[in-house]
Amino acid sequence: MNVDGKPMRTIWLENPETVRVIDQRRLPHEFVTLDLRTWQDGEVAIRDMAVRGAPLIGATAAWSLYLAARASTSEADLQAAAEGLLASRPTAVNLRWAVERMQAAWQGERDPAAILAIAEREAIAVCDEDVAICKAMGEHGLPLIRAIAERNDGAPVNIMTHCNAGWLAVVDYGTATAPIYCAHDASVPVHVWVDETRPRNQGANLTAWELGQHGVPHTVITDNAGGHLMQHGQVDILITGTDRTTRSGDVANKIGTYLKALAAHDNDIPFYVALPSPTIDWTISDGFDIPIEERSPDEVTHIQGRAPDGSVTTVQLTPDGSPAANPAFDVTPAKYVTGLLTERGICAPGELASLFPEGAASVISNQ
Amino acid sequence: MNVDGKPMRTIWLENPETVRVIDQRRLPHEFVTLDLRTWQDGEVAIRDMAVRGAPLIGATAAWSLYLAARASTSEADLQAAAEGLLASRPTAVNLRWAVERMQAAWQGERDPAAILAIAEREAIAVCDEDVAICKAMGEHGLPLIRAIAERNDGAPVNIMTHCNAGWLAVVDYGTATAPIYCAHDASVPVHVWVDETRPRNQGANLTAWELGQHGVPHTVITDNAGGHLMQHGQVDILITGTDRTTRSGDVANKIGTYLKALAAHDNDIPFYVALPSPTIDWTISDGFDIPIEERSPDEVTHIQGRAPDGSVTTVQLTPDGSPAANPAFDVTPAKYVTGLLTERGICAPGELASLFPEGAASVISNQ
Repeated sequence: MNVDGKPMRTIWLENPETVRVIDQRRLPHEFVTLDLRTWQDGEVAIRDMAVRGAPLIGATAAWSLYLAARASTSEADLQAAAEGLLASRPTAVNLRWAVERMQAAWQGERDPAAILAIAEREAIAVCDEDVAICKAMGEHGLPLIRAIAERNDGAPVNIMTHCNAGWLAVVDYGTATAPIYCAHDASVPVHVWVDETRPRNQGANLTAWELGQHGVPHTVITDNAGGHLMQHGQVDILITGTDRTTRSGDVANKIGTYLKALAAHDNDIPFYVALPSPTIDWTISDGFDIPIEERSPDEVTHIQGRAPDGSVTTVQLTPDGSPAANPAFDVTPAKYVTGLLTERGICAPGELASLFPEGAASVISNQ
Repeated sequence: MNVDGKPMRTIWLENPETVRVIDQRRLPHEFVTLDLRTWQDGEVAIRDMAVRGAPLIGATAAWSLYLAARASTSEADLQAAAEGLLASRPTAVNLRWAVERMQAAWQGERDPAAILAIAEREAIAVCDEDVAICKAMGEHGLPLIRAIAERNDGAPVNIMTHCNAGWLAVVDYGTATAPIYCAHDASVPVHVWVDETRPRNQGANLTAWELGQHGVPHTVITDNAGGHLMQHGQVDILITGTDRTTRSGDVANKIGTYLKALAAHDNDIPFYVALPSPTIDWTISDGFDIPIEERSPDEVTHIQGRAPDGSVTTVQLTPDGSPAANPAFDVTPAKYVTGLLTERGICAPGELASLFPEGAASVISNQ
């Protein structure tokens, strides 16, 4: 999508020894990039959330293994890199998917130059396929928005989203935002309610920034406001991303998604979850079996913003001595999800296996 | 309740010409008081939220009319003060209640000294009655918490609350917190999940501070986290306050309350709303007829906290150019409320009239 009028991706090979990413911790106040030169640089970028979003985490892991292969192609070193990367964010299933895909690609190959070439080719493929997947989700989701636009008689379609499932979370287009960008680019009038998404404010920091850069009308709201807007007919559709979706359609996504899903359900507002198929965890049926990452209380007690002097600074919100808890994700049961938006089309939450029979089959064959 | 080990109220007459309040905008980082010497000082304190919480707004309005009577007891001047105060916060029904009570008290009196004496007596009564009401709510609510404690077999009762319906919102004890303080003081083990309550973070700023000052165990969470905690059995009871409750039991309270009520309902967790009877609006049945205050977008785009150098500073959260919306309250339909906790006891949401027949009758007689 556009940044300052110029098309851009979130991750790219700047030169053979450097993978470059947008440092998302500095947005929306500063646009800076970060150079990764070792797999450990990639692991830190994932762990410290310079990059975030399940697909971009996968892409960063793939490029990190390319960097690992540049340093050493010994089986032990590559295995250590893979394990280090897998430990950086436990909830993101794409991380495991990308790491296993890279390992499978060079499996059996002994020649260092060949392993490196495979790693580069595979990391490029991970990124390009992600772009193709997101673009397909956008095209499948566009008719949903267009149908509402026709009912709205020219008034903008009000879309609510939570967290950042935008192009900053993937390589380009985004997941939840893909249909929004497709609609906007097709001149279907849209307006996006952007949940700020405490504690890390990825909505206010990232979604608002990328929508603004691409010229999509939007309004930032607190996470508390969405139910009220839904009660008052100001939301036509809720679309979020997901970090992991079970084969039965339970959705693990950024903390607070469940509350918005309940409000959508209570007000008969459709709730679609956009998910590239690598986000499906075929090994799990019940969403409550997904481990939920508990992150640092500092994310709750402190927040980053731009001070009056223009510097990006962190301020403490809570009283000294008050503890905080910080579960990072919640699970929305499939019964509160209207539909799943995938690169192969839209299905009911319980029907993922009919769209992706090979995914369902892979689990059965492993049992 | 205690501040630094010393019992304190939120508002008091410091000397005949000075009403003193805690400046709640500086909490939790600085404890400072604010002196009101004119009714306009009181109006500004209410409008700029140096004082907030429906009952404390009422108490401040009463003391502001005392200050008005010190300056002039002319009918026109007192009327101008009353109207100025009424315009400062449109949603708070206690404001109108307190202003009308003061006006009724000096109605027909012409002697300036007598009017001033009545104003002082009445403002004191407004405060003392509020304390008595809150204490009664605490005593009626204590058995709810004690019953859970008995089931919990010694483990702390996990209570979730939203915004600040604590003693900082009233004169002492609080509304939603009154049963919590009563339980804590009676050695019933409690632990409070404190929603931070964006945009103004009254939970993180005020509820966490007052619970901490009084020694009540608590944990601050983002507004997004409550649903997840309820899904995982970590919440025994949800208790909030209310800014206005209709005669049918619909509850207008701080934005986001509705989302927590939906989650409590979905997880079979009891949701009690603590309301002193002046908060009941007998003239309205349907909660959606309550006007909802839309506050400044700056509250969403900016936040105040303590910078690393110790100064209390405001930082910008959102990108330049991204608009924000800020509805301040939402309405929870009575069907999602387990019970209303009043100074006369607990009732089902639809049964307020049986606890307060004189309130219900006052409306019928006005029709």
